[in-house]
Amino acid sequence: MSLLVIGSVALDSVATPFGSVEEALGGSATYFSCSASFFTTVKLVAVVGEDFPSRHIRFLKTRNIDLKGLQVRKGRTFRWKGSYEYDLNEAKTVYTHLNVFSNFKPHIPEEYKDEKFVFLANIDPDLQADVLKQVRKPALVACDSMNFWIENKRKELIRLLKKVDIFILNDAEARELAEEPNLLKGAKRILSFGPRMVIIKKGEHGALLFSDHSSFSAPAYPLESIYDPTGAGDTFAGGFMGYLSRAGKANESNVRKAIIYGSVMASYNVEDFSLNRLRRLTLKDIDKRYREFKKLTCF
Amino acid sequence: MSLLVIGSVALDSVATPFGSVEEALGGSATYFSCSASFFTTVKLVAVVGEDFPSRHIRFLKTRNIDLKGLQVRKGRTFRWKGSYEYDLNEAKTVYTHLNVFSNFKPHIPEEYKDEKFVFLANIDPDLQADVLKQVRKPALVACDSMNFWIENKRKELIRLLKKVDIFILNDAEARELAEEPNLLKGAKRILSFGPRMVIIKKGEHGALLFSDHSSFSAPAYPLESIYDPTGAGDTFAGGFMGYLSRAGKANESNVRKAIIYGSVMASYNVEDFSLNRLRRLTLKDIDKRYREFKKLTCF
Repeated sequence: MSLLVIGSVALDSVATPFGSVEEALGGSATYFSCSASFFTTVKLVAVVGEDFPSRHIRFLKTRNIDLKGLQVRKGRTFRWKGSYEYDLNEAKTVYTHLNVFSNFKPHIPEEYKDEKFVFLANIDPDLQADVLKQVRKPALVACDSMNFWIENKRKELIRLLKKVDIFILNDAEARELAEEPNLLKGAKRILSFGPRMVIIKKGEHGALLFSDHSSFSAPAYPLESIYDPTGAGDTFAGGFMGYLSRAGKANESNVRKAIIYGSVMASYNVEDFSLNRLRRLTLKDIDKRYREFKKLTCF
Repeated sequence: MSLLVIGSVALDSVATPFGSVEEALGGSATYFSCSASFFTTVKLVAVVGEDFPSRHIRFLKTRNIDLKGLQVRKGRTFRWKGSYEYDLNEAKTVYTHLNVFSNFKPHIPEEYKDEKFVFLANIDPDLQADVLKQVRKPALVACDSMNFWIENKRKELIRLLKKVDIFILNDAEARELAEEPNLLKGAKRILSFGPRMVIIKKGEHGALLFSDHSSFSAPAYPLESIYDPTGAGDTFAGGFMGYLSRAGKANESNVRKAIIYGSVMASYNVEDFSLNRLRRLTLKDIDKRYREFKKLTCF
């Protein structure tokens, strides 16, 4: 089954202790789509400016990504600049220029409206809700968010969560949204807002899945060098939703496997800047690391 | 097979946001022994003062713990007082009174000298080395340490590690000892000091095992409430070494299972103050949570 994603396509400038890139391809929907495209066809809804380099469009077309939903608007593309210290867990934002993204009204093309698997990448919860209204009968809706929306659009986000099946967020966001330091209690609180599953990403400590009746703990892949953590969360979500769409059914067993595939994709993504590692990734690489996750957790 | 442990027996005063205890039974060798005694017979080498309550001796005797190596010396028992904030990861020490422990010369009783499984709980690396000299032909030596010794007896600790098979420490200690922020690189550095396996405990994020040829990631058991983290590391080591001694062989498969048993024991221990949870723990409880760890990691 194919997969619909709404999010950002951006040009990122990133510096880490291991190097830097200027105006490289980035954005939540970009990382998500490229990652998911290893598993299924992705239909991308986003906006870029007239300055968006055509080579990036050509690259996205070489992947399994349908670009009918990518609007090109007058103005400049969304730009983000950030840097990381040796503790690569937190990005320091230098600037965020929303540009064409500031007036973005997501328009779902008619032929996307019957999509069954939908991912709402991190954007304004009102826009996420607006997109959901345009999709006729989604079978599985997953979404992401961030501290900014938790702090500034809490009500809207909680309202949205009633219509979401799987909510993916990181540990700090979970604690903030649930107003609870304990992750297990926090997850229960978030489940009470509506989703039937919540996935809490813990960076180098892996990810946790909580539902009403069970929990699952996925490790992170031990890496010697993380070159650039930008997009790791979206790449995780892409592998996760990509696998689920291909499997066709979000039962617990598939969701657990999907979390491992998400972790595999994220672990590769951080090995290079921008989408460089995903560009040269193969299905064989993905299978290899999936088997390594098995060995890593087997007892 | 039985198991020899050298470490501290103490009286702990602990306060957490959930309650407090005064002069409760504590000490690294105490937590270790009680935890390991669910799996095998433990031979305890330690020292207490004349003021050590006889009810604690009676309790230890009800467990599978041989106390011939427990010296009673003139003076007061080792006392520690500490407190934890809501983030229960770090103890704030109020005082440490070494008392009889300050002149402790570990004397291994003749009938302990042929023990095959040895655990050197966290004490001065010189004392740990001294104990090792007294044991004739140990088959498996594991040890623990702490930041104080890494900072103040680095050379002695590294010298000791040449004779140690499995080194157990926490993530901050691993980073400090290896002088390396990345845990995978740090583990490789520590392996180069001598041990054939290193286990890095990450508290609420589980534990990692590294050897020359493989790695293993164990999750932490998700708990809603941690009442008192005191002794969690020693309880982990007790379950770990207890299971290995019972299994009789420290191959990789057994070591992985042993890490899960260690995690099970530690997860119970933090559910109450002092050794209170271990006092009422049953083998059935242990098996139940071991199976829950299986479910928690299965994909």
